Amino acid sequence: MRCDVLAIGTELLLGQIVDTNSSWIGEQLASAGIDTLEHRKVGDNLDRVVRCIRSMLEVSDALIICGGLGPTPDDLTREAIAEVMGVPLERRDELVEWIANLFGGRGRQMPENNLRQADVPVGGDVIPNPIGTAPGLRCEVDGRVIYAVPGVPYEMHRMVSEHVLPDLLERSGQRAVIVNRSLKTWGASESGLAEMIAEQVDAQTNPSIAFLARGIEGIVVRLTAKAPTVAAAEALIAPEEARLRATIGDLIFGIDDETMEHAVLSRLEARSWTLGVAESLTGGLIGSRLANVPGASHTFRGTIGSYATAVKRSVLGVTAEHVVSADCAQQMAEAAREVLGADVGIAVTGVAGPGEQDDQPVGTVWFGLAIPGVPTETVSTRLPGDRERIRQFSTISLLNLLRMRLDALA
Amino acid sequence: MRCDVLAIGTELLLGQIVDTNSSWIGEQLASAGIDTLEHRKVGDNLDRVVRCIRSMLEVSDALIICGGLGPTPDDLTREAIAEVMGVPLERRDELVEWIANLFGGRGRQMPENNLRQADVPVGGDVIPNPIGTAPGLRCEVDGRVIYAVPGVPYEMHRMVSEHVLPDLLERSGQRAVIVNRSLKTWGASESGLAEMIAEQVDAQTNPSIAFLARGIEGIVVRLTAKAPTVAAAEALIAPEEARLRATIGDLIFGIDDETMEHAVLSRLEARSWTLGVAESLTGGLIGSRLANVPGASHTFRGTIGSYATAVKRSVLGVTAEHVVSADCAQQMAEAAREVLGADVGIAVTGVAGPGEQDDQPVGTVWFGLAIPGVPTETVSTRLPGDRERIRQFSTISLLNLLRMRLDALA
Repeated sequence: MRCDVLAIGTELLLGQIVDTNSSWIGEQLASAGIDTLEHRKVGDNLDRVVRCIRSMLEVSDALIICGGLGPTPDDLTREAIAEVMGVPLERRDELVEWIANLFGGRGRQMPENNLRQADVPVGGDVIPNPIGTAPGLRCEVDGRVIYAVPGVPYEMHRMVSEHVLPDLLERSGQRAVIVNRSLKTWGASESGLAEMIAEQVDAQTNPSIAFLARGIEGIVVRLTAKAPTVAAAEALIAPEEARLRATIGDLIFGIDDETMEHAVLSRLEARSWTLGVAESLTGGLIGSRLANVPGASHTFRGTIGSYATAVKRSVLGVTAEHVVSADCAQQMAEAAREVLGADVGIAVTGVAGPGEQDDQPVGTVWFGLAIPGVPTETVSTRLPGDRERIRQFSTISLLNLLRMRLDALA
Repeated sequence: MRCDVLAIGTELLLGQIVDTNSSWIGEQLASAGIDTLEHRKVGDNLDRVVRCIRSMLEVSDALIICGGLGPTPDDLTREAIAEVMGVPLERRDELVEWIANLFGGRGRQMPENNLRQADVPVGGDVIPNPIGTAPGLRCEVDGRVIYAVPGVPYEMHRMVSEHVLPDLLERSGQRAVIVNRSLKTWGASESGLAEMIAEQVDAQTNPSIAFLARGIEGIVVRLTAKAPTVAAAEALIAPEEARLRATIGDLIFGIDDETMEHAVLSRLEARSWTLGVAESLTGGLIGSRLANVPGASHTFRGTIGSYATAVKRSVLGVTAEHVVSADCAQQMAEAAREVLGADVGIAVTGVAGPGEQDDQPVGTVWFGLAIPGVPTETVSTRLPGDRERIRQFSTISLLNLLRMRLDALA
């Protein structure tokens, strides 16, 4: 089964919006074991959309068309599919009513244009859209299938997950469910990780094991199992996940959508410990990421973004002569705990560039961790890259250090 | 002149990397007045790459191929172009020498694989790559032209700007230069902006005027002029820019690559004023953005991310009963100035959600600004969206308020 993707919108060609939809769909298709071999972007032009659909269906069993289902005259996906099918559009009463109700429910009058969204090529099926005005379409042409989904990402995600993928799997005769489990790691390179678990990766076909490099989000080791039921797929994953954890467990900070900051906050919350941060080169970035976790207020007290040396001295009471040093990181971590009234204090100081500081080269970073019951610890590292990358890597590296230290406590 | 774009790489189809290259190229082509009507992504498979190139050249005058120029066996762009041209590859001595020198210069031995990067289809031209090992290619087939550029964004950007675009303009017979000027605005909607300058936009063809919505970076009004020389193009832009500024000047915070935080820091630096921040719901985000500007240390003192109410009281001395209030924003701004030893203090407090706080709905935000010589000011707003969006919009809105107040000072 091969399913290609066509993204529609002149704004995509002009670079006003980056087409992330086809990447997301490609990832879903790959996880489901469906080949996806070509993706295209084309503008809002009926002739060109029709030509694209025709030429893509020549080589593919299925096509997902993304976008062009809106209410304005330049939304042409419905017309293009009808032309490819050689049928007219018909206005579906139940869709008219449904769209009118949507507007009525929000106390707004339905613009005449929105009626276009009730048009369906004769013989086509409607894919319901529970969270937007644009219904999706499923249409068959000469034994091939076309799915049309909205360009708005969260509407598209839901329609593809709930309708398109199950339908494709059914058609492919797989009659199987796909279950993914992502183990999110930090601290090893992709090749380093691959080496550690090479034997298991090579031997495994179901679940398959893949590596996805996610930059600042680390490297994901993804297990993908196919089975007749979710329970059966999960039963295939469990022993392989256990084997992976036996080898690289220390590097795994979370699963699936869990972020590093969530991993840290949940571990602290389990101990009823609060956290304070003192940060120099990151200027508030660590606090910002922690504050973005819903429910952070149970645990996260705040951050002192002590960018200027004078602020390190006046607010944090740092006496260390050099501000890029173990002494300074230690004093900052202890002050974060004290000034912010927290159980745990963490700190980072370093040189983000562009120039050297205190004779230390760009990328030199010192971390401090003040954790109850153990002596305050300092760790130094040397990070590559530009200013922004050094700041981002400092943030995630410090949070990961804290995670590992918390896991190592009795 | 029509130039389409083909991005090569299986990882693009699988969603492991989002194809931002074709968006960037599309934007450059559009600015240069060259049509770009279809973009494709295809995997690392020789047959499919060859078929794609052939079918794209059927309708386009020129094709930019991005990626597949690396040293590994799955880098197939060179082979594919040679096959489309019906010629063999030849290894160019001068390229072998150049690549060997690159490795020698870094004290590393050249892997045998890298020799493949010295292969060029017979009859093709080399586009130099001053910052990477993959040379680009320019090849002609039946009066059409193919450019192959690396997939590494910064190498690609340079090659497209310095070689591909000038060559395309030359071929298109335009023999013109294109000069862009982006006026970055904050505070008006796209439709609101369009209304204010509708007449000018409609009347203008050279420079043309376009709107680009950039989310958290605001809305860009872009002037694009074509002329025989850079000086002539700039002379076309100057009076139109002046007219725009007369109408929407207050909304413009910067030009071209200038960010809001840069706009704020440069205005402060001009007055030799330093800045301190106190932030609640943003948790350090404002400080983080300011600290990311090279040279921020002349002006930015630091931020107090006073996430917990107790920290607002102990570190900032806030006495206001409710922490989402004008009183609290005012006390935070004044404390930011005092505690951080800064000339100017700014502050934000509010409700990012998920739940209400102090009976205030999600999205309620209070800003405080303590500026020398004028009374401390507070401003409230109600922002839409989810937690992350509210935090991002709070950040840029507060920085923009400060920019406007600084501009309004005598």
